[in-house]
Amino acid sequence: MDELRTLPGGLYRIPGVRLASTCAGIQRHDRDDLVLIEIAAGGQCAAVFTRNAFCAAPVAIARRHLLGRTPPRYLLVNSGNANAAMGELGLEDALSSCRRTGVTMGCAPEEVLPFSTGVIGERLPVERIERALPVLRTTLSDSGWEAAARAIMTTDTVPKACSIAVQAAGQTVHVTGIAKGAGMIHPDMATLLAFVATDATIAAPLLQRCLGDAVTRSFNRISVDGDTSTNDACVLIATGQSAAPAITAPESPGHAEVGEAIAAVCIHLAQAIVRDGEGATKFVSIEVSGGRSEAECLRVARTVACSPLVKTALFASDPNWGRIAAAVGRAPIPDLEARTVSIAINDCTVLERGARAAGYTDQQGRDALAGREVAIRIALGRGESGSTFWTCDLSHDYVNINADYRS
Amino acid sequence: MDELRTLPGGLYRIPGVRLASTCAGIQRHDRDDLVLIEIAAGGQCAAVFTRNAFCAAPVAIARRHLLGRTPPRYLLVNSGNANAAMGELGLEDALSSCRRTGVTMGCAPEEVLPFSTGVIGERLPVERIERALPVLRTTLSDSGWEAAARAIMTTDTVPKACSIAVQAAGQTVHVTGIAKGAGMIHPDMATLLAFVATDATIAAPLLQRCLGDAVTRSFNRISVDGDTSTNDACVLIATGQSAAPAITAPESPGHAEVGEAIAAVCIHLAQAIVRDGEGATKFVSIEVSGGRSEAECLRVARTVACSPLVKTALFASDPNWGRIAAAVGRAPIPDLEARTVSIAINDCTVLERGARAAGYTDQQGRDALAGREVAIRIALGRGESGSTFWTCDLSHDYVNINADYRS
Repeated sequence: MDELRTLPGGLYRIPGVRLASTCAGIQRHDRDDLVLIEIAAGGQCAAVFTRNAFCAAPVAIARRHLLGRTPPRYLLVNSGNANAAMGELGLEDALSSCRRTGVTMGCAPEEVLPFSTGVIGERLPVERIERALPVLRTTLSDSGWEAAARAIMTTDTVPKACSIAVQAAGQTVHVTGIAKGAGMIHPDMATLLAFVATDATIAAPLLQRCLGDAVTRSFNRISVDGDTSTNDACVLIATGQSAAPAITAPESPGHAEVGEAIAAVCIHLAQAIVRDGEGATKFVSIEVSGGRSEAECLRVARTVACSPLVKTALFASDPNWGRIAAAVGRAPIPDLEARTVSIAINDCTVLERGARAAGYTDQQGRDALAGREVAIRIALGRGESGSTFWTCDLSHDYVNINADYRS
Repeated sequence: MDELRTLPGGLYRIPGVRLASTCAGIQRHDRDDLVLIEIAAGGQCAAVFTRNAFCAAPVAIARRHLLGRTPPRYLLVNSGNANAAMGELGLEDALSSCRRTGVTMGCAPEEVLPFSTGVIGERLPVERIERALPVLRTTLSDSGWEAAARAIMTTDTVPKACSIAVQAAGQTVHVTGIAKGAGMIHPDMATLLAFVATDATIAAPLLQRCLGDAVTRSFNRISVDGDTSTNDACVLIATGQSAAPAITAPESPGHAEVGEAIAAVCIHLAQAIVRDGEGATKFVSIEVSGGRSEAECLRVARTVACSPLVKTALFASDPNWGRIAAAVGRAPIPDLEARTVSIAINDCTVLERGARAAGYTDQQGRDALAGREVAIRIALGRGESGSTFWTCDLSHDYVNINADYRS
């Protein structure tokens, strides 16, 4: 696997995918807010969506269209409006935008998947979207990834995108992805969207598994504020236009390599979202080892990552390890015994088998926390499994951004 | 049941309970930080403790001593040091403080229950506690409740205490309680302590049930920041010195009345803790109705109450109801359907059966949020059960207090 390439300028084109972005004036008039992604005939598409019961209308429609007989040909993505919590009207608006895209692009409405991110509880301005479709049609380009990464931003401060090339069965395969999100949910925003494409040929059922694997290791391992969005969606496209042989089964040549490349792109994008977390000043890895299962390690990591008290201490670079221990202690895992647990901040052990580490000083802890990247290492001492989770600190600016956004 | 009485000056004495407070210099030298509570012979005592796996040494010792053959005679409570995450040393220190109290007061060490709140990971200064015991012994008084409420404070800005009188089987019974806590966990603090006493006569197993009931309806229904402390404890004392007949079974005369009085005191103290939540500017009731069970209503209420995005919007008096809907949608209850859910802020309906309420305007929402007390009313529309949970908003000062505490 080659090195990851990022912005500016580092993205690979994916033969079989073209993108166009424009300003439709959905909420603002000074930036692009509408993206059309075209998948050439013969491509496959898999997706995972939020499990929030208040899932937005576009999520419901995209799910439905993915069950159709033909693979999707177009993804229509808008920022500025989430089309969430709008009941039947929301579903009609999402469907209507698919129909209008179908008319402009010459495909069935069921071949269009809609995605929205932005304010909850406002009607989607479908007329504005329709007016913007002709310009999208005429500007589709396989070099449109970076502009698309910018057009789907909401409270994001930087666009998120990366690419990787990998050798699969002796041929070069590319993977490129873009994502947006700076919290699980935003001010009025709803939230994480990611679009990843590869020119590999991957059969549809396997493509869904590839995506599930990659998401489990990336987007499901991050938290900015513990809130889950109504609009989260992640799409994986396989255009089948590389020279590599088709991947049709887990044992197909190239499957492992391409799967790892897709996961690497997703992990980079997920980490980029945390780094751009609302108000974030630190990137924090929570590394849990010595658990009885990966699942219980993940539960411990998530509990620590979502503790407001741990996160405010990280913001202050305060080695307040009692808060980390207290969060570990309330994680929902059975029979945890404090006396087997050890905790380190980077390489500085603060807690050893349930008690303050001998010789530990506050100054050592402060030194360990001084940088912008921090690893909290938790050894449960009761098994062989491990898991890692990524988060950021909780700063004044988090409250500023979220309390003051609409005023 | 009479009206609740609070500070200043409103507390009833409880015959059979005496209290003394002093400054032992545990962390600071300018305020009381050590309390001794004496229970006259013949009294009974029940307690509930944190379920945190990193429970503090005093919690472990108090649990053990409660299993002894004789009921406790003394509660020794210190602020300024949690004696948590100290391993064997912590257990020795907690035991040692019980032994020294036993020597001074003339009782067995097992008749003393220790409680600590304050910094995690520092050794308890047992010598300072020992030096303060003689003055505690000579100043025990049945009017010491208010001073004790002040001595157990950490980041609390106000003491929390209340009393109530109730008629039980034709006789007057009193209940008085004090509590401390301004978050589930504090800066280095660990956290909620509550001591409630009644002069009713209640048999030991029933007393534990009474306390469990009251705690379920009070301290287990509040959250400031979603973190659970290592030191939480709530104690209920029944001195048996009122003229009311003994309560020995659920059907005993006076049981219902005294139980309600104890719950009322606990609910008042729990709400007082939320009102004094770190940085809190609003007191928020989350009232969930129309659920299939009380448990699922509580899960929804707790999810909304712990959402940082809901809490920052409340701080800003921003009627950002999409965040409330999104939190309801991610609550861990099965088969929730958005189309049956309605949400109101006070009397202003914002979401009706899954969609923005017809005629709702942002200005109505702003008006509803203007006050310092807010009710968020969530109707799940799938059953007959309900539950209420109390929380506060998430303000700049929460971050200030928790990020800057140790610097």
